[in-house]
Amino acid sequence: MVIEAIGFDGDDTLWQSETAFAITHDRVRALLASHVPRDVLDAQLLETERRNLEIYGYGVKAFTLSMIETALDLAGEALTAADVRALLDAGKELLAHPVEMLPGAEDAVRWASAQGLQVVLITKGDLFHQESKVARSGLGELVDAVEVVAEKDVATYQRALRRNRVDPTNFVMVGNALRSDAAPVLELGGWAVHVPHPLTWALEAADDEDALRASPRFREVPSLIEIPTVIPTLDH
Amino acid sequence: MVIEAIGFDGDDTLWQSETAFAITHDRVRALLASHVPRDVLDAQLLETERRNLEIYGYGVKAFTLSMIETALDLAGEALTAADVRALLDAGKELLAHPVEMLPGAEDAVRWASAQGLQVVLITKGDLFHQESKVARSGLGELVDAVEVVAEKDVATYQRALRRNRVDPTNFVMVGNALRSDAAPVLELGGWAVHVPHPLTWALEAADDEDALRASPRFREVPSLIEIPTVIPTLDH
Repeated sequence: MVIEAIGFDGDDTLWQSETAFAITHDRVRALLASHVPRDVLDAQLLETERRNLEIYGYGVKAFTLSMIETALDLAGEALTAADVRALLDAGKELLAHPVEMLPGAEDAVRWASAQGLQVVLITKGDLFHQESKVARSGLGELVDAVEVVAEKDVATYQRALRRNRVDPTNFVMVGNALRSDAAPVLELGGWAVHVPHPLTWALEAADDEDALRASPRFREVPSLIEIPTVIPTLDH
Repeated sequence: MVIEAIGFDGDDTLWQSETAFAITHDRVRALLASHVPRDVLDAQLLETERRNLEIYGYGVKAFTLSMIETALDLAGEALTAADVRALLDAGKELLAHPVEMLPGAEDAVRWASAQGLQVVLITKGDLFHQESKVARSGLGELVDAVEVVAEKDVATYQRALRRNRVDPTNFVMVGNALRSDAAPVLELGGWAVHVPHPLTWALEAADDEDALRASPRFREVPSLIEIPTVIPTLDH
């Protein structure tokens, strides 16, 4: 087959991530219910996260700081020290949340490794937390490299592939985010397998989904269980 | 010469970092002066940072969250929403703080690059913030690789050197922290040039400074201006 190296995204591809964010988000809504209506909170939190992205980047620490900022913006002087403490605690719980693997994740990585493919984990977010999740996932021994990156754009993939001596045309990226996992890799001449996740962060939507899906190097599968079936079919 | 690759630490080696933390720390002391005595705050903040290290890792976002937690612990219900906002703002200013290069930094990196040495920037902290600082330092084009790592121990250096195809015995690490920059590299059989910085984070002290300094592969220079002089002298 044409594929010699395979990249896996981490959050919401190999393991659950948004689910834990969603649970925390619900707790924060309940916590702040006396200060602010639910839909106002949701809109404002998303707006704050978007505005802080270029200052804080991705990850749970960024999310925690944005939660506190949103609560301050909405509740003002009514926000109590106990509220702030509860938000800090919610962030810490999110960081300590056990790594829950998605169906077929371990088998997909084991299969790729057994096929002799070069296996790279390419994940976005907080370096410290991502490394901790890789360690807790038990997959660390099966992968050839872990790349925690600040942003998943064409330049990032180019650097990561060059560093691992991988030609993009022999590379397939497996992930749940069209914008971060599929678009830049297709642009480089590589392949993309999209594994949709029911919860995808609102800031991860792609502008040009139809164009992406039309690429001859794009595939979509319902779960990682299909990986050993779909990868060998990738060919020009 | 024996050296084929050179690693530079970022924070407080190539650019100022603790200085900005210290200014922020002073502002926080002033801000919380009505709630808590200065020395109590200092001791408690260090203790909180230490306790949170394995949850938050390193960097400004971790520092901001630990500041808020310390303020809550010390001031309790007396902490106002305005206080919390001021702590958030202090953290954001720290993230946006301009990158101030240390004397000789740019020349040292230029010299190493011109010598044909493989130049790697190996820095600890928050991935997003570190990448932003490398970009703002203007040194990005002069280095062969940037490694932002979660912890600087023997295993981390081993991985980084293997990834960049560098033999430890031909590698020298230049940095201000004996524990993070010198000790693990010497243990791997590599070389270390210590460039002390007047402000070094209390959690960065090494237990066995005398043993490190006794190594035949250890050097200390007062500033990066000495790099072109000291590196060619490294030999068995």
